[in-house]
Amino acid sequence: MGEFQVADPDFAERVRHSFGRQGLMAHLGAAMTRVEPGIVEIEMPFTDDLSQQHGFYHAGGIASVIDTAGGYAASTLFAADDGVLTVEFKINLMSPADGDLLIARGEVIKPGRTLTVTKGEVFVRKDGETKLCALMQQTLMRIVGRSGIQG
Amino acid sequence: MGEFQVADPDFAERVRHSFGRQGLMAHLGAAMTRVEPGIVEIEMPFTDDLSQQHGFYHAGGIASVIDTAGGYAASTLFAADDGVLTVEFKINLMSPADGDLLIARGEVIKPGRTLTVTKGEVFVRKDGETKLCALMQQTLMRIVGRSGIQG
Amino acid sequence: MGEFQVADPDFAERVRHSFGRQGLMAHLGAAMTRVEPGIVEIEMPFTDDLSQQHGFYHAGGIASVIDTAGGYAASTLFAADDGVLTVEFKINLMSPADGDLLIARGEVIKPGRTLTVTKGEVFVRKDGETKLCALMQQTLMRIVGRSGIQG
Amino acid sequence: MGEFQVADPDFAERVRHSFGRQGLMAHLGAAMTRVEPGIVEIEMPFTDDLSQQHGFYHAGGIASVIDTAGGYAASTLFAADDGVLTVEFKINLMSPADGDLLIARGEVIKPGRTLTVTKGEVFVRKDGETKLCALMQQTLMRIVGRSGIQG
Repeated sequence: MGEFQVADPDFAERVRHSFGRQGLMAHLGAAMTRVEPGIVEIEMPFTDDLSQQHGFYHAGGIASVIDTAGGYAASTLFAADDGVLTVEFKINLMSPADGDLLIARGEVIKPGRTLTVTKGEVFVRKDGETKLCALMQQTLMRIVGRSGIQG
Repeated sequence: MGEFQVADPDFAERVRHSFGRQGLMAHLGAAMTRVEPGIVEIEMPFTDDLSQQHGFYHAGGIASVIDTAGGYAASTLFAADDGVLTVEFKINLMSPADGDLLIARGEVIKPGRTLTVTKGEVFVRKDGETKLCALMQQTLMRIVGRSGIQG
Repeated sequence: MGEFQVADPDFAERVRHSFGRQGLMAHLGAAMTRVEPGIVEIEMPFTDDLSQQHGFYHAGGIASVIDTAGGYAASTLFAADDGVLTVEFKINLMSPADGDLLIARGEVIKPGRTLTVTKGEVFVRKDGETKLCALMQQTLMRIVGRSGIQG
Repeated sequence: MGEFQVADPDFAERVRHSFGRQGLMAHLGAAMTRVEPGIVEIEMPFTDDLSQQHGFYHAGGIASVIDTAGGYAASTLFAADDGVLTVEFKINLMSPADGDLLIARGEVIKPGRTLTVTKGEVFVRKDGETKLCALMQQTLMRIVGRSGIQG
């Protein structure tokens, strides 16, 4: 996508620090692997704790990491003391998330003063091959001068 | 809503059994508390493992339980050997999920031979008071004669 | 739903007046039939100008009236000089919109200072019988002290 | 995106013919300008009949053309006697659609035997400059051997 202007030169450290304080992300074994202006990636290795009844990644775990990736992608463009809040998101689960690693990539489409729109893509890796398995469209709100209300 | 016809008299046991095999639901500490034709409720007590950076329930945990509640609400109306698969869902996070207990209620709006549409409501309880904090609209697919591909 | 407080006693006149200035609504033959705090209904009789290739209401016409009904439902609770803007909406088309009249009902679920969440239900009437055919979930933004940017 | 396999060599003629039978598209002054495997574009010049109360394109008109573009994008990959039906779509209105021409581009992301997922982008042209103003994510259903139930 386009090149985005960052307002906070320390955006990467700020975003990683905030991510590190999310109990759910640690509980799911997720790691933030990429932080760039408008783009964030999170990876999550498969364990039975992330499964649904057939041994694939549960849609809830997929939604958790892609919502987080999108929210932090928006946050990279914010000022240092702004918070980010998920207003809503929609996710299509397009094929079974069958594999050993999930890669969630959030990307800003339209930054804004109040609202940011992102897209999210989730890939699942199996036997070394990576395949797109879910797609998200998301709306975030910037909370000026106050830390975010919801992840 | 309306009264739905069940195809499988043992729907409640079947749904509870399938829920019990979802690793993620156990990992998040979620429990299925209500199973009726077209309606399923799941509760999830708060722990730090479910938190985002401000101590509230993470949007991902909220999405996990309401997607599951909606999917199983649809499944109550299926035949015993049908599977359920989440096609997509959209969730609005309407206020901070700040409390000690989350109650996710999935309800069938439009049953169908191939696709079922559900709505989901998520409530958070704090100091004994319960408040609506998230709203979902979801599309499920019935997999005839085969167990579901995705929870 | 609950009873909402109105900020503007002349909300009904204001909303009807704004609706009357929407060229698309007139072009589609839509009429606003109900305006109450948090609830707006719009009706649209069928003509070939509203059809898709099989003679049913086109999804676009359905989306047009339910988005408008939801937006104005939110607007009933606003101050006289606030504007309303559709941030996003999601719509499920649940059965063919086959009939002579479409009734779109928008209802506020969660009012807010900046964002309002609504739900929408669309009914189609055929041979005197009315049936739910579409469901919407929508997010609106309040534009304080300025007329809305988008319908 | 990727290159898609077409099942019907006459897909372009079939799609254009079906579009031509949509009363709403003619009533809105929309024209199909591009038909390729997995990609369809529709243009719609501005008139007052497409306006909301501030003179911009009404969200309903935007939704109408992008839903149609996505549905026909899916349809390009179908067999000659399959129908296409919109299951659901979500649209973000990201900036005011202020201009003289709307360009709606639907693109298949994930083709499937029963369900197809598309993305949609809507651009508005003003003073010769084109800008992205809306984004859609959509789910279509293939109706095998029968013409579509809904556009």
